[in-house]
Amino acid sequence: MERVDGRRPDQIRPVSIIRHYNKYAEGSVLIEMGDTRVICTATVENRVPPFRKDTGAGWVTAEYAMLPRATGVRTPREAARGRQGGRTMEIQRLIGRSLRSVVDLPALGERTVTLDCDVIQADGGTRTASITGAFVALVDALDNLLREGQLSAMPVHNFLAAVSVGRVNGLLALDLCFAEDSAAGVDMNVVMTGDARLVEVQGTGEEATFTRAEMNEMLDLAAAGISRLVDCQRQALGETAARITPVDPLA
Amino acid sequence: MERVDGRRPDQIRPVSIIRHYNKYAEGSVLIEMGDTRVICTATVENRVPPFRKDTGAGWVTAEYAMLPRATGVRTPREAARGRQGGRTMEIQRLIGRSLRSVVDLPALGERTVTLDCDVIQADGGTRTASITGAFVALVDALDNLLREGQLSAMPVHNFLAAVSVGRVNGLLALDLCFAEDSAAGVDMNVVMTGDARLVEVQGTGEEATFTRAEMNEMLDLAAAGISRLVDCQRQALGETAARITPVDPLA
Amino acid sequence: MERVDGRRPDQIRPVSIIRHYNKYAEGSVLIEMGDTRVICTATVENRVPPFRKDTGAGWVTAEYAMLPRATGVRTPREAARGRQGGRTMEIQRLIGRSLRSVVDLPALGERTVTLDCDVIQADGGTRTASITGAFVALVDALDNLLREGQLSAMPVHNFLAAVSVGRVNGLLALDLCFAEDSAAGVDMNVVMTGDARLVEVQGTGEEATFTRAEMNEMLDLAAAGISRLVDCQRQALGETAARITPVDPLA
Amino acid sequence: MERVDGRRPDQIRPVSIIRHYNKYAEGSVLIEMGDTRVICTATVENRVPPFRKDTGAGWVTAEYAMLPRATGVRTPREAARGRQGGRTMEIQRLIGRSLRSVVDLPALGERTVTLDCDVIQADGGTRTASITGAFVALVDALDNLLREGQLSAMPVHNFLAAVSVGRVNGLLALDLCFAEDSAAGVDMNVVMTGDARLVEVQGTGEEATFTRAEMNEMLDLAAAGISRLVDCQRQALGETAARITPVDPLA
Amino acid sequence: MERVDGRRPDQIRPVSIIRHYNKYAEGSVLIEMGDTRVICTATVENRVPPFRKDTGAGWVTAEYAMLPRATGVRTPREAARGRQGGRTMEIQRLIGRSLRSVVDLPALGERTVTLDCDVIQADGGTRTASITGAFVALVDALDNLLREGQLSAMPVHNFLAAVSVGRVNGLLALDLCFAEDSAAGVDMNVVMTGDARLVEVQGTGEEATFTRAEMNEMLDLAAAGISRLVDCQRQALGETAARITPVDPLA
Amino acid sequence: MERVDGRRPDQIRPVSIIRHYNKYAEGSVLIEMGDTRVICTATVENRVPPFRKDTGAGWVTAEYAMLPRATGVRTPREAARGRQGGRTMEIQRLIGRSLRSVVDLPALGERTVTLDCDVIQADGGTRTASITGAFVALVDALDNLLREGQLSAMPVHNFLAAVSVGRVNGLLALDLCFAEDSAAGVDMNVVMTGDARLVEVQGTGEEATFTRAEMNEMLDLAAAGISRLVDCQRQALGETAARITPVDPLA
Repeated sequence: MERVDGRRPDQIRPVSIIRHYNKYAEGSVLIEMGDTRVICTATVENRVPPFRKDTGAGWVTAEYAMLPRATGVRTPREAARGRQGGRTMEIQRLIGRSLRSVVDLPALGERTVTLDCDVIQADGGTRTASITGAFVALVDALDNLLREGQLSAMPVHNFLAAVSVGRVNGLLALDLCFAEDSAAGVDMNVVMTGDARLVEVQGTGEEATFTRAEMNEMLDLAAAGISRLVDCQRQALGETAARITPVDPLA
Repeated sequence: MERVDGRRPDQIRPVSIIRHYNKYAEGSVLIEMGDTRVICTATVENRVPPFRKDTGAGWVTAEYAMLPRATGVRTPREAARGRQGGRTMEIQRLIGRSLRSVVDLPALGERTVTLDCDVIQADGGTRTASITGAFVALVDALDNLLREGQLSAMPVHNFLAAVSVGRVNGLLALDLCFAEDSAAGVDMNVVMTGDARLVEVQGTGEEATFTRAEMNEMLDLAAAGISRLVDCQRQALGETAARITPVDPLA
Repeated sequence: MERVDGRRPDQIRPVSIIRHYNKYAEGSVLIEMGDTRVICTATVENRVPPFRKDTGAGWVTAEYAMLPRATGVRTPREAARGRQGGRTMEIQRLIGRSLRSVVDLPALGERTVTLDCDVIQADGGTRTASITGAFVALVDALDNLLREGQLSAMPVHNFLAAVSVGRVNGLLALDLCFAEDSAAGVDMNVVMTGDARLVEVQGTGEEATFTRAEMNEMLDLAAAGISRLVDCQRQALGETAARITPVDPLA
Repeated sequence: MERVDGRRPDQIRPVSIIRHYNKYAEGSVLIEMGDTRVICTATVENRVPPFRKDTGAGWVTAEYAMLPRATGVRTPREAARGRQGGRTMEIQRLIGRSLRSVVDLPALGERTVTLDCDVIQADGGTRTASITGAFVALVDALDNLLREGQLSAMPVHNFLAAVSVGRVNGLLALDLCFAEDSAAGVDMNVVMTGDARLVEVQGTGEEATFTRAEMNEMLDLAAAGISRLVDCQRQALGETAARITPVDPLA
Repeated sequence: MERVDGRRPDQIRPVSIIRHYNKYAEGSVLIEMGDTRVICTATVENRVPPFRKDTGAGWVTAEYAMLPRATGVRTPREAARGRQGGRTMEIQRLIGRSLRSVVDLPALGERTVTLDCDVIQADGGTRTASITGAFVALVDALDNLLREGQLSAMPVHNFLAAVSVGRVNGLLALDLCFAEDSAAGVDMNVVMTGDARLVEVQGTGEEATFTRAEMNEMLDLAAAGISRLVDCQRQALGETAARITPVDPLA
Repeated sequence: MERVDGRRPDQIRPVSIIRHYNKYAEGSVLIEMGDTRVICTATVENRVPPFRKDTGAGWVTAEYAMLPRATGVRTPREAARGRQGGRTMEIQRLIGRSLRSVVDLPALGERTVTLDCDVIQADGGTRTASITGAFVALVDALDNLLREGQLSAMPVHNFLAAVSVGRVNGLLALDLCFAEDSAAGVDMNVVMTGDARLVEVQGTGEEATFTRAEMNEMLDLAAAGISRLVDCQRQALGETAARITPVDPLA
């Protein structure tokens, strides 16, 4: 049984990560995974949200949105409807939480880094592409602080990337495109570090269920995909990659 | 090392499920897991949301809220702030999605069942208690339709329950209370069917990561806990439980 | 002519007041009047709204809501609609204003007590039950401050309770249940102190009018009902009741 | 003891009612009571709200607002804040409900009359002036329908006016101006028909209480004031007044 | 070819400017241009918006609204809809910006003057009437500060008025009434100073276009109209007019 | 005196128009003017807004937004704030109105074309770039309908482009970049057709004024700039350009 775009079950789509895509942001990336395109920008501000005040530690947060025609049918603009939908909130909470797992927040100091992930074109896997791209934008923004002498060491201790995996017509497959995602009975988003530790696992049966064996097989696929994505990040970051020294932030 | 309330790592809190808690709703339950208390009501309406119109199939959805003093410090009312927060949206989407996995939506016909889960007192695990309780309210509401002759068979094919599990101070533990949840480095919510198939797995490192081995151990704990919760549901439902014939809805 | 539930015109429904219903709130009550059930919690915060800043005096305010299935037909959640309705606002203003009439606000100091009244099940008279129940929760919360030495005397000087009365099919009746309320041409909510002084009188003709004689008769019924409700409060409060010394706060 | 503006306790302020103040509205009035000025317009639309559909009967509703500088200190615009406040909602519900008490809604047919009451300048008693003025605008709008042959009889069966009364520094006084209203311990708004039947009584102790005797005295003052206001309405309406035949709508 | 109300192409409608229309506002005007009537009030507050803080300079801003029956068909209230529409925002930004062009903001000091323009009746040209009227209210408010000794000189250096002009059925005409405005293919709003300098030109083809020659002719008409409006302002202001010394604020 | 980026006063920035930028939209363009980049997509829907129903004619409308880091300092997301700001509304109204001036709406039939203009990077002139780019996306979307046989002729009769012009430090200059725009005392946006007719002129003094002579000079600059932009559009459209036959839609 073949995939809709001819890929092998364990094959991710072509990945492109363009750094410095925006002239204003402290870090910025255009990430493409197949036809999914997301602009990720990192903004550094010298303040923290109220609940982090006077802790000495920083914060990393994210916002996510799709342009109206990122999708096949035009999606009404959330600003026009006057509120962000549940899906948007869920995704931006996921992105922020994932990135925080590899950042030494006390070392960041009382700063907030906001990752804006704006989907220009959506063809499945927008939330995982956002995490993978936002990681690079975040590193670039922090590297700026480092080079300006505002930080003494890179507060990111590990690579971080994300990928989707799912069961489509009975077949387990990696990095679902939109056509596959729509047909998937089970859909799982996995976020892992560069040394293959889990950060987030969100497996969902869509009017369906799955077994522990399927879950394990999906995690294997995801681990392989994330490993390849981390390679892409490393390549895109070039020399900057070396500043991410693989130390567990909890150590 | 002991748990804050003296439980064994694989022990759930005392469970109480009171049916017919509300005189108006088609199904209603007060569920208590330790000091967490949730009122779950099921409302049946003879219409479906626009995206399900003219499909012949029904819909199951959920709304979730907490009373202001469900929590130690008063939480401002979402109605007064004018919008539901991201956490609320995320939870109510999870509840609805989970329940849909065990309902034969075409057999339900063009009806919507809305599960309202209102947390009266929160002591950890409110979303999982909501799912476990809402399942019973849903069965009662559908059983009503069955007895009124509006349905010819119970469209629920499987039991469904949920529990949290996490890593607290290095120890993996089942059914976290609030004190444990606040201290947890890893937190996982698991939704499973009565025959131990997975419906949702949401594992999250809170500024932390976890290994595949830990993940497997947590899933084992969750499976055991859910099995006990399904026993509680079965006992609460009494004779009605027999109408849930364990057929995979995908078969 | 008989009432729908067989009561005499001057008879209130069975009353139950359960204190300490919630483990977090400084004061909390589950009040039942017939099938109407309201959870009232009192929250004490060491700050006052902007318009009371630096006056040395405190504030008492209230919020009111109904669970979606408190009613026969599901009422959409105000948080989901994004705004509180006019009825909700009117009721919560009434509750707060009524309670303030028996509190010595300067003696309270720069603190705010928020009474949250959440209707779990509605069968008429939810606003009056809220006032009657919230009074007890308020006293408990202030008694806590007293016992902690934060106050030197109970700042509540008088009992306070509320009841509805109305003209149903030409008959004047006390404490209307929902069926009566729906059929009532005239509906009056009365709030009185323990020594029978008036605090609020809100009499309303629903596409109807009423005479001064009817008004007087309704006030007599209300006074009798409130007297019985104050007895219930006194009994529920036990020894704490003695701290409410019946001094007019204006004296 | 004298009133702030030298009036006797039972004296209302100078009243002016200018009809046809607006060239578009089916009925429109500029009412002045002392320095309180309200523009009341009546709009007739050939539809009813959803809850009145297919009943054959009509509806009367009201909206109320204040211009920002109707008040001594500028009040932020509700449209800019994005929501109507509780006071606004309470008042517009009161105006609509009061007017409905003298309208034969079935005779009106499936039409909605919306009374917009916009306070141009506020010096106390804006809600009662709104009712008194809106009544005249309503009659004019219905008289138009009558003259166009769309109605066969005036569906208004009774005059209707409103006034405030209160206890200011221990003195009971009629038609409070803003300075008195601010100082009032007790404030009561009374709506009555042309034949002295009660429609609404809203008596409120502001951190104070009142006795039955005071209540009765206040109602006497209100009745006298409303009688004079009905005279003003009658005079303003001229010949049109004759079409309001004093038949009880409940008869 | 004649205009709908018989005016010559270069003729403005009768203008009336009544000062001190409101007893609370620091400056207030009722302006009428034909059947268009706008209440303009000026409020002075001793603070500036955040983006002007600590600049030493003041700010002038405006808000605009229409009463529901300012229009032939009732316009729903923006406060009830929960947001101001695009037209409202556009107009109030225009009014504020226009007035700022003739105010010496540094000389005003850290104060904000808010011009509220509320349209009581709309018959075309409400935004231009708002500007013309608000100018007078602004001058009165600042003159108050001057007389109180809070300012040492009038910070308004030039008269300012506005008028509409357009192409209706091929004819260029000044000061369009609503009937003309609805039929206009081209509509232009012009704001000018007392010495005929341009402040704003907003020319718009409504599904139509216009030539440079037409544009010039329209500007000529506008200049003539504004000159007459400034005369009306001067006359209305009486002696106060002399305090506006025609110095370019940029000089 | 030189411009900040070395351009001559009458020189526009380098323009790039990339068609088919998005794989879903019926028409889509990435337009760049210097460092300003806007994605414009055109969506065709077979319905019209309520106010156009049953007229047989179509509608063209626009929405505009900026990504948070389109700007030097991060701009909070309007969806998160819950409302679109005045500037956004003003701009999207301008874009829609401008495009309608060259579309034969009756010939379009009961369809709506929505132009979404999302600013990826802002360096001045985003509204004019949006118009220039949206025109091309619109033509592509309509050309699709033409080729599918849903339209018999291109309903766009004229080219349309827009440019800004202003007075910066006393110098009149074309196509202002952000640095110039911030320093501009006068700012004018001009929209013209391919045959040099005016569609919109919005000239604004920012706390400044301008003369008729300056206005004329600015219009000359704008006309020259727009002529060059129309050349760019023509070149980008290639053969499709020929379908735009320069007939005045009013003819």
